[in-house]
Amino acid sequence: MSELIAFIGVGNMGNPMANNLVKAGKKVKVFDVSKKMIEKAKEKKLDIVENLDDLITNEVTTVITMLPEGKNSKEVYLGDKGIINKVSKNCLLIDCSTIDIQTSIEIGKKANEKGIKMIDAPVSGGIMGAEKATLNIMVGGTKEAFDIALPLLKIMGKNIFHAGDLGSGNGAKICNNMSLGITMIAASESLMLAKRLNIDIKKVHEIMKNASGNSWPISVYPPLPGLIDGTPSNNNYRPGFSAGMMNKDLKLANECAKQVNASTPLAKMALEIYDKFCEEGNDTKDFSAISKVVGGDAWNYPID
Amino acid sequence: MSELIAFIGVGNMGNPMANNLVKAGKKVKVFDVSKKMIEKAKEKKLDIVENLDDLITNEVTTVITMLPEGKNSKEVYLGDKGIINKVSKNCLLIDCSTIDIQTSIEIGKKANEKGIKMIDAPVSGGIMGAEKATLNIMVGGTKEAFDIALPLLKIMGKNIFHAGDLGSGNGAKICNNMSLGITMIAASESLMLAKRLNIDIKKVHEIMKNASGNSWPISVYPPLPGLIDGTPSNNNYRPGFSAGMMNKDLKLANECAKQVNASTPLAKMALEIYDKFCEEGNDTKDFSAISKVVGGDAWNYPID
Repeated sequence: MSELIAFIGVGNMGNPMANNLVKAGKKVKVFDVSKKMIEKAKEKKLDIVENLDDLITNEVTTVITMLPEGKNSKEVYLGDKGIINKVSKNCLLIDCSTIDIQTSIEIGKKANEKGIKMIDAPVSGGIMGAEKATLNIMVGGTKEAFDIALPLLKIMGKNIFHAGDLGSGNGAKICNNMSLGITMIAASESLMLAKRLNIDIKKVHEIMKNASGNSWPISVYPPLPGLIDGTPSNNNYRPGFSAGMMNKDLKLANECAKQVNASTPLAKMALEIYDKFCEEGNDTKDFSAISKVVGGDAWNYPID
Repeated sequence: MSELIAFIGVGNMGNPMANNLVKAGKKVKVFDVSKKMIEKAKEKKLDIVENLDDLITNEVTTVITMLPEGKNSKEVYLGDKGIINKVSKNCLLIDCSTIDIQTSIEIGKKANEKGIKMIDAPVSGGIMGAEKATLNIMVGGTKEAFDIALPLLKIMGKNIFHAGDLGSGNGAKICNNMSLGITMIAASESLMLAKRLNIDIKKVHEIMKNASGNSWPISVYPPLPGLIDGTPSNNNYRPGFSAGMMNKDLKLANECAKQVNASTPLAKMALEIYDKFCEEGNDTKDFSAISKVVGGDAWNYPID
């Protein structure tokens, strides 16, 4: 049976991911509910199927989904016309959406009951990572399913991790992004304090990068402009990874922590800070723009 | 005039720092108010002067202080029998204590009024860094004073940074350690959440180390055992860098932030968490033991 990939959800992330599969010579058909995203897919000359029913047939060998929320994944896979009722047993299901662990496990379990393999494979690395195929992909599922998916995942990403059983991909991503959300605020508080103390932030940044205050936001993605070229903070906080997406991930993290009785005091406060920032209309800004609201009024908040 | 270093405060950090100067062939005389520390200095065969008055003479070419708090630095430099009244104008004063910026500036200003050069030069890297001479040293003061101090600082540390004017050494250290205190809790929350989700923490640690969740606590100093050899978490949280010291630094950071109207919401909450942890009798544990109190009861708190 010849390979045929059905790619559902060609938004900011899904579009370049599907495009990288095409560039690698894969046969890919795509679908999206959004007319705008369909237009963008057309610009990339992706092979669009106008109707999800027509896309999902038993010819499909792999389904990849990149959807906004758990409820979207659930509907597409398990709904009335759900994928698991239409694909063949040999089809592999790869859900790259970042969703709650329970939903991942529920979908995978129902797929397994029908003899269909499924993995959860959320990604990190943002739009740039999707375009350059440098994404981190965190996979939950059996070793067998992981091994089958690996060649395709390697086309879309750079570091592919098998985190554990079904749901562990989303679990690992939630843990990673929870730390990131907090650490971005920590980096903002420190750099803004330095600024207010009239210490050259370039020097403080250099010191922190080489000392115990280092973190990914400090060394790769500083929240203040003028420190590292090519970051969103140098581009009026054009994302990147939006504050709205970070807010969603912090919500997932705190909900998930609540379910297993894990205390996450800083993650809770980070969520409150991002919540307020998004409510004030900044959800489409890069998440590093949070530096505009910590550190006091030395910084020119609001941003435009 | 031949070189003579007066080293005041030979505690856990000062002792190995002074010893490294001796090993490099420098003439060093030491003093400490603590009998216990004097005993330890004797074990290292450091040249002890029993009385501070006898130590500080106009023969001294450099004074190095490594004291617990701002009030100690202030007393030693500016008190009735203060150093600035006894040393010659050519003597360089190096305060390696981590103290509040105002006190640093006050001491330096009064020294300058007498024509004496002074720098604040707090260090990071812990006892191990002091022993191995791999400390980060953050210096505030004039370029001229920095250049004079540099050869001595290079004997005690590895990365020597000139952060800016007097007080900037402490300012930069406060910014660095504020970020560290928050990030250690963030790393703890993430790894503990992974543990409670039954995801292998070795895998989550590996993922975070290679992704946007990375930070110094994740890559160098993880707060849970079994991840990196030789860390305090693998040695029943023997410090290292004590929770009490981190608590002190977070207090300094928040006080300093208040003075310049910088908002530091996460640093404030981190201080509350460390305050409680220290009040419960854990101040001598390594600060990474904070992982015992975030993440819920899956972890065996209290520690011994």
